[in-house]
Amino acid sequence: MDFDALFTDQLDQLKREGNYRYFAELERKCGKFPRAGNYKDGEVRDVTVWCSNDYLGMGQHPAVIAAMCEAVQRTGTGAGGTRNISGTNHDHLLLEAELADLHGKEAALLFTSGYVSNWAALSTLGSRLKDCVILSDAGNHASMIEGIRHSRATKVIWRHNDVKDLEAKLAALPADVPKIVAFESVYSMDGDIAPIRAIVDVAEKYGAMTYLDEVHAVGLYGPRGGGVSEQEGVADRITLIEGTLGKAFGVVGGYITGSAALCDFIRSFASGFIFTTALPPAVAAAARTSIAHLKVSDAERMQQRRQVARLRDALDRAGIPHMMNDSHIVPVMIKDPVKTRMLADYLMQEWDIYVQPINYPTVPKGTERLRFTPSPLHTDADIDHLMAALRTLWRQCALSHAVA
Amino acid sequence: MDFDALFTDQLDQLKREGNYRYFAELERKCGKFPRAGNYKDGEVRDVTVWCSNDYLGMGQHPAVIAAMCEAVQRTGTGAGGTRNISGTNHDHLLLEAELADLHGKEAALLFTSGYVSNWAALSTLGSRLKDCVILSDAGNHASMIEGIRHSRATKVIWRHNDVKDLEAKLAALPADVPKIVAFESVYSMDGDIAPIRAIVDVAEKYGAMTYLDEVHAVGLYGPRGGGVSEQEGVADRITLIEGTLGKAFGVVGGYITGSAALCDFIRSFASGFIFTTALPPAVAAAARTSIAHLKVSDAERMQQRRQVARLRDALDRAGIPHMMNDSHIVPVMIKDPVKTRMLADYLMQEWDIYVQPINYPTVPKGTERLRFTPSPLHTDADIDHLMAALRTLWRQCALSHAVA
Ligand SMILES: Cc1ncc(COP(=O)(O)O)c(C=O)c1O
Ligand SMILES: Cc1ncc(COP(=O)(O)O)c(C=O)c1O
Repeated sequence: MDFDALFTDQLDQLKREGNYRYFAELERKCGKFPRAGNYKDGEVRDVTVWCSNDYLGMGQHPAVIAAMCEAVQRTGTGAGGTRNISGTNHDHLLLEAELADLHGKEAALLFTSGYVSNWAALSTLGSRLKDCVILSDAGNHASMIEGIRHSRATKVIWRHNDVKDLEAKLAALPADVPKIVAFESVYSMDGDIAPIRAIVDVAEKYGAMTYLDEVHAVGLYGPRGGGVSEQEGVADRITLIEGTLGKAFGVVGGYITGSAALCDFIRSFASGFIFTTALPPAVAAAARTSIAHLKVSDAERMQQRRQVARLRDALDRAGIPHMMNDSHIVPVMIKDPVKTRMLADYLMQEWDIYVQPINYPTVPKGTERLRFTPSPLHTDADIDHLMAALRTLWRQCALSHAVA
Repeated sequence: MDFDALFTDQLDQLKREGNYRYFAELERKCGKFPRAGNYKDGEVRDVTVWCSNDYLGMGQHPAVIAAMCEAVQRTGTGAGGTRNISGTNHDHLLLEAELADLHGKEAALLFTSGYVSNWAALSTLGSRLKDCVILSDAGNHASMIEGIRHSRATKVIWRHNDVKDLEAKLAALPADVPKIVAFESVYSMDGDIAPIRAIVDVAEKYGAMTYLDEVHAVGLYGPRGGGVSEQEGVADRITLIEGTLGKAFGVVGGYITGSAALCDFIRSFASGFIFTTALPPAVAAAARTSIAHLKVSDAERMQQRRQVARLRDALDRAGIPHMMNDSHIVPVMIKDPVKTRMLADYLMQEWDIYVQPINYPTVPKGTERLRFTPSPLHTDADIDHLMAALRTLWRQCALSHAVA
C-alpha cells in the first residue's frame, strides 16, 4: 500500500484550501526581544515578532536565564527518568510548592506541557469518576477537548461563556452524578474572558467541580500573576486551576493545582503523567524564578497593558477593525486563509514584521486572522512601525474597513 | 458532591494493594553521576542511583551542558510559541535534520516528549487513514496504547514478539485496508528485544506500514546510536521510527522520523503536535550535541556493555535470579509490591543505594521487580557495593534463590 500517496492526498487538500502551514524559522535573540532572526532562502534577517506567547518577554529575563544555566551546571541537562523512576528532583518539588502558593491551593502537579496537563487531568477525571459528566465550554482548547474525548465520559457542550446555558445544562442532569465544568479564563484566539464568578456560582449550586484553564492568564492577571481567578478573588472556589510555564512564564511545561487529594489522584492514575520523562530540573528552576519574579513585580504587566492600549488606539484611529476584549490579545479578523497568508507574507517581506497567519484548525474556517500580542518590550516605535505597515497594507489591498 | 472523598477512596485502594507510589526526591549532581543527593526527612544524603534512564550519563556530558547553556544565553529559556505561531527556531530544524540523518530518513518531527510523539502520531494515523487497522504488540508502552485508543481505529493485539501470531493476524485482514504494525525494539521492563527483521518481513508481505518505538535503544545500539534497527541493518525498511531525547540522549523531548510526506502529514494534522508550546531551543541544542557525540563515539556504549555484563555475572555468582535478555536492562523479579518496596527501602536506608520498586501500572500485578540500569559511569566498586548489599539482603530476607 502506498502510504505516502495517502498522506500527500490529504496534504494537497490542505493546500487547495489555503490551510497548509508554513512555519517561520526564527532565531530568538536573548536580550533583543521582540527582535529575532528570520531564516529564509539561505538568508537571516532581523524581524520584529508580533505574535509571541512569551507575553512578557520573561524568556530572556536575566534572572530566569541565570537560574536555568545555574541548574544545568548543577544538575545536568535532563531529569533522567519518569517522576516515579529516579526523575523527581528537588527543583520539581520547589516549583510545585511555588505553583500551589501562586493559586492558593494545597498542592500542584507538574506535566511536560500545558497540553499534557489538560489532556491527562481531564482524561483521568472523566474516566475514573464513575458516571462523570463533563460540561465543556464550546470554545475550549484542543487539549481539553482531546482529554474529554479520551476519557469517554459523557460530554455536554455549553454555549461559549453563556452562564444561562450552562445552568440549563447542569439542571437537566441527575443530582447524583459527578459533574465537571471545564472552561478557560482568557480564550487565546478571541481574547475574551470568561465570567468566572458567575460560572463558579452556578457550578457550586449544582455541586459540580470547576476545572479552569488559565494558560493565557497566569503571570498576566491578578496582583501576583495568579490569573483571572486571582484578579476576581475566586481562586479559592475553583476546584482545579491549570496553567502553563511556556507562555507568560517564558519556559516550557504545564501544571495543575488543587487539593492534595486531587493532585495525588492525578499523580497516581494519569497515564500522561506517569509514563513520561520528567521535565529537566533546569526547566523547573527557570520557571520557578520567573513565577517568583512576577509574584512581586507588576512592572511587566503594567507596561504590557499600556502597549496593548496604545496598539488598540492606533488601530482605531487608522480605522482597522479589531476584536475588542478585556485581555492582552489583539485579533484583526481577515476571514480568509489565503488573504491572511498574503498579508502576513507582505508584512514579513516588506516590513520585517512577523505575525503568523492564524488558520484552521486553530480557529474555525472563515475566521482566519492576524493576532497581535504586544509585550512590555514592544516600544512605541515598534507600534508606529507596525501601524505604518498596516495602514499601507490596508490602503493597497483595499480591504474592507467596515467593523469585522 | 465531595470530590476529595472520591479521590481518597481510590488512593486508599492503591495503598491497600501496596501499589501507592512514593517518589524519591533527588538532587542530580552534575559531574557526579550516578551519585545524587536524596532528600528525606529534612536531610540530604548521597546515594548511588541504579535505576536512571539517563543510560549513558549524557545528561552531564560537558559538551551537552555547554550546548544547553550557550543556547539559553543566546536564545533565552523558551520557544515562545507553538511551532506554528512563532515557536519554530533554527535549533529545532537543526535537530530535526540530525534525527533524520541518525535514522537515515528523509525527515523528522520533534514533540515535547516521547510519550506525546507516540500518542500524537498513532492517534493521527489511526484516525485519518480510512479503515485503518493497528496491529499492536501486547507489550507496547502506555503512550502507544493511549494513542491507538484515542484514534478509535480497529486494534488487533498480537502476542508479544510473536511473529507467527502477527502473521496470522495480518493474513486474516482484508488486503485493501491500511495496516500499521506497531512495536518496540527494546522493551523497557523486561529488557527483551523484538525480532525486528522478521517483523518487517511479515509486514512488507502484507503491505503494512511499520511503526517502531526505539525509545530505549536510541543512542545505545547501532554503530551510530541509531537503535536496534540500525544495528540489524533494517532501518530503511521501517516506515516510522520513534524515539526520545530524554533517555540515552540525556535531555527531554521526543520525535518521529520517516518520509517527508509522513512527517508533513503528522505535522499538519496531529493535535498533540500543533496545539502546544515548542521545546526550548536550548533543549534542542543540547539534544543535538548529545546525538552528534554518540554518532561518532562508541566509548560510552562499550563501557556500558562491560558494566552490564559485570553486574549480570556477579548476580549469577551470588545466585540472585535476574531476567536474561540482550539489552542493558537487568530486572530482578520480586513479584510482590510490598516486598519490592521493602527491599528498595532497605537498600536506600542501609546502603545508600537507590533503585525504585517497579509496580503496577508500569508492570502487570504480580511481576513487581527491581530494575537495574548499569551505566558506563557505574564503577566496578559501585557494582561490588551493590552486590554486597544484595547478598546481605538475600540472606536476611531468605528470599527464594530459585530461578524467577
Ligand atoms: C487554552 C490553552 N490551554 C492549553 C494550552 C497548551 O499549553 P502548552 O503550550 O503549555 O502545551 C494552550 C496553548 O498552547 C492553550 O491555548
Ligand atoms: C517504550 C517507551 N516509549 C515511549 C516512552 C515515553 O518517552 P518520554 O519519556 O520521552 O515521554 C517511554 C518512557 O518514558 C517508553 O518506555
